[in-house]
Amino acid sequence: MPARDLFHDAVVHALQKDGWTITDDPLTVRYGQDRVAIDLGAEKILAAVRDREKIAVEIKSFLGESELFDYHAALGQFLNYRLALQGTEPDRILYLAVPKETYKSLFSRDLAEASVQQYQVKLLIYDPEEEVIVQWRP
Amino acid sequence: MPARDLFHDAVVHALQKDGWTITDDPLTVRYGQDRVAIDLGAEKILAAVRDREKIAVEIKSFLGESELFDYHAALGQFLNYRLALQGTEPDRILYLAVPKETYKSLFSRDLAEASVQQYQVKLLIYDPEEEVIVQWRP
Repeated sequence: MPARDLFHDAVVHALQKDGWTITDDPLTVRYGQDRVAIDLGAEKILAAVRDREKIAVEIKSFLGESELFDYHAALGQFLNYRLALQGTEPDRILYLAVPKETYKSLFSRDLAEASVQQYQVKLLIYDPEEEVIVQWRP
Repeated sequence: MPARDLFHDAVVHALQKDGWTITDDPLTVRYGQDRVAIDLGAEKILAAVRDREKIAVEIKSFLGESELFDYHAALGQFLNYRLALQGTEPDRILYLAVPKETYKSLFSRDLAEASVQQYQVKLLIYDPEEEVIVQWRP
């Protein structure tokens, strides 16, 4: 199985363990003439408020030669997908799924950290081996 | 010569024809532990105000399989480079150089157009064959 798909499956399993139902794989969003495919759509019933929380997740493996360069590309995708989602489903929250090792090395660097704050990127940090969610940020 | 370098040279020549002096090729910008290399730094003396205008230019060829996907990556690079520049040279303005054919096709689409406006991306539209600048936007 290609490495990319391993990461995809790991995030699917991690979300399911966390009580999420995968509703779209991928989640297709139209914007004008364009169609973008976000890796996953998921929802979770919040019993207390009788409501459902909806998310979209773009999964990144960061397997390229440069983590920083992979982050540039991931940032652009995240921001354009978020823009597209705002037009169709403003209540669905987009997350960028990042492996925990990447999170430790990349986001301990000032530029990536400043960028995540500046552009309000929401991160879902996952463990690709244990297939669990390590942290939602914020 | 690789296509990438042809586009690079075309933008260098287009800027020179427009009265710019290339000062950095590439322009290296430090941000914390990171160093990013923006394709070009250039300046132009504005005689009327006895001042010099300074720009940085990241050159994109859009030769990938998907123009929209290339744009995602270019947007992330642009926004992270702009963030890095703000820390070191806040008066230097960053532009994304886009070939005119890409501009016509990609930016006639709603998503790319909305994205450029939302994230205040400055574009330098160039003709890679004539090696001239077609438009600065805005």
